[in-house]
Amino acid sequence: MVKEARTVEVEKVAVIGSGNWGTVIARILGGNVAQQKGFDREVKMWVFEEMIGDKKLTELINEKHENVKYLPGFKLPNNIKAVPDILEATKDATVLVFVIPHQFVREVCDKLQGNVHSKAKAISLVKGFDATETGIRPISHVIKEALKIPVCTLSGANIANEIAEEKFSETTIGYKNLQEGELFKRLFETKYFKVGIVDDVLGVELCGALKNVVAIGAGIIDGLKLGDNTKAAIIRIGLLEMKKYIKMFYKGIKDETFFESCGIADVITTCYGGRNRKAAEAFVLTGKSFDQLEKELLNGQKLQGTLTAKELNTVLKNKGLENEFPLFTTVYKIVFEGLDPKKIFDDIV
Amino acid sequence: MVKEARTVEVEKVAVIGSGNWGTVIARILGGNVAQQKGFDREVKMWVFEEMIGDKKLTELINEKHENVKYLPGFKLPNNIKAVPDILEATKDATVLVFVIPHQFVREVCDKLQGNVHSKAKAISLVKGFDATETGIRPISHVIKEALKIPVCTLSGANIANEIAEEKFSETTIGYKNLQEGELFKRLFETKYFKVGIVDDVLGVELCGALKNVVAIGAGIIDGLKLGDNTKAAIIRIGLLEMKKYIKMFYKGIKDETFFESCGIADVITTCYGGRNRKAAEAFVLTGKSFDQLEKELLNGQKLQGTLTAKELNTVLKNKGLENEFPLFTTVYKIVFEGLDPKKIFDDIV
Repeated sequence: MVKEARTVEVEKVAVIGSGNWGTVIARILGGNVAQQKGFDREVKMWVFEEMIGDKKLTELINEKHENVKYLPGFKLPNNIKAVPDILEATKDATVLVFVIPHQFVREVCDKLQGNVHSKAKAISLVKGFDATETGIRPISHVIKEALKIPVCTLSGANIANEIAEEKFSETTIGYKNLQEGELFKRLFETKYFKVGIVDDVLGVELCGALKNVVAIGAGIIDGLKLGDNTKAAIIRIGLLEMKKYIKMFYKGIKDETFFESCGIADVITTCYGGRNRKAAEAFVLTGKSFDQLEKELLNGQKLQGTLTAKELNTVLKNKGLENEFPLFTTVYKIVFEGLDPKKIFDDIV
Repeated sequence: MVKEARTVEVEKVAVIGSGNWGTVIARILGGNVAQQKGFDREVKMWVFEEMIGDKKLTELINEKHENVKYLPGFKLPNNIKAVPDILEATKDATVLVFVIPHQFVREVCDKLQGNVHSKAKAISLVKGFDATETGIRPISHVIKEALKIPVCTLSGANIANEIAEEKFSETTIGYKNLQEGELFKRLFETKYFKVGIVDDVLGVELCGALKNVVAIGAGIIDGLKLGDNTKAAIIRIGLLEMKKYIKMFYKGIKDETFFESCGIADVITTCYGGRNRKAAEAFVLTGKSFDQLEKELLNGQKLQGTLTAKELNTVLKNKGLENEFPLFTTVYKIVFEGLDPKKIFDDIV
């Protein structure tokens, strides 16, 4: 079957990553490639191998059709195949779906360099920036530069477990070439996961990267027990700073992008439901450090919001722009410089 | 003191209305006119007279400096004077602050007609539309036409009690003439109540009128227990339908208005904290009618959201535009035509 399909040049999908979000996405892609024309029916999923008891995670996934570590309780379609080797996972793939933590992107790209299909295109679901000594770069740029292939982006109001439960959600795909935007829409969209497409790769990606800083602000408001008006004000101010920052530093950003799921909706979701919000609330309520809270609340995983706040601050400080982004700057100062959370509005208004 | 002030043409403020929101606003205005130059120090507040036990509400307010019925627990400044007669309340006033339920606006305007100061200007904080047999009209138009004076509007993420508690909030004033926008900003702004001004009287007002329909949708989502992604999606879709409707039916609307407190922030607040949301959630959870829920949850007060949904639907139906506004239309059908709430997404996506 695969052989026959290859002869009519079907798209072959590989998912690079198998965390919570990656597994939810693999589940959707597995279903879609099986139902739609034009796709190879097998989806390989690269898994960073680890031992679960005395078994390998890849073996467990392929036996049980379930990612018992990162998405327990949800069956994966049988056409998802977990693969521990990145080159084997992506061999012959024409669609590379990147859904790994941002700090692993360079390493993965190094391995893939020179080994991707001539017609390959990527879509990045990676959150955050690639931080170097000289500044921060969008992940889509890193992938594009390393692999010399077109890169789209996907981001939206997408708490992973809710999508696993097939609760209605929207998402946004940013494309440069409409044909790719439409291909990815077909690949990702389901009845409960609606895809909007916009001609704005960076706008979509960067909304996803910056929102968590706003969520830290929202969590601080929650910790201070300041009510719905205040929370809405912080979300609004945050969205405007995101828009200002993205338009100031990147070209071709569309205003409409901020009205898409990746903009306003994702900021709302993240400020009400996400873990950055939760940790920031606990920071105010308990006085514990974020390091401590990451251990207690997140199993030691690092928060995206505090990291991004720091990365942004380096950029803003270098360019003398801290005052132009009072919320980003105040969040940074509260998290890293001991500013009293109660002073969150002092420079904003 | 008043006499001396009058000779240099100070602005004299009258608040028309003394419900929960009106009283919170009177409290702010009383404080501001006392501290700022250019205002008469007394603010008269028109109160629809009622008996509280054996005492008149106006007498109680003037004795206790507290609106014991609509804002108990918060002292009013001494310079607020409750007045039961509308003409006496507004005599010599150059600033008329309308903050009454929309169904009383015409009656009040009829009484004021021919009796307003030659330099009077109004600001409307009234929510909802003026509904007639032929359609719906913005309240600011009704006031302007009746009194032949300039009318600004104020709307924002403003749950009244949170502002009474002096929790940080933002609001938006829509003006036509910048000078009036700036006057009203000085009059309304405090350290905890930040005023943004935009050259868009109708945009500001109409966001406030339409948001409650979205909140009914959000409450339905809550009742169906659909999670944060779905709620954010409904808020986003709702904001876009608001924008589309307002721009389709009114001229001179600015895109930026939807990024102000009256737009995105108010929709968020209303969809998380408001009573329209709450009643709609209960509607789904209990199966009781909205009439019943208004009695049980709102002391018999009518919900704005269901009323506006009906008014909008009349317009949309008449113009054959129901399909262009699937959320507004679906909310109407769920509330008034027995459509199963679970079908809320069937026509939206």
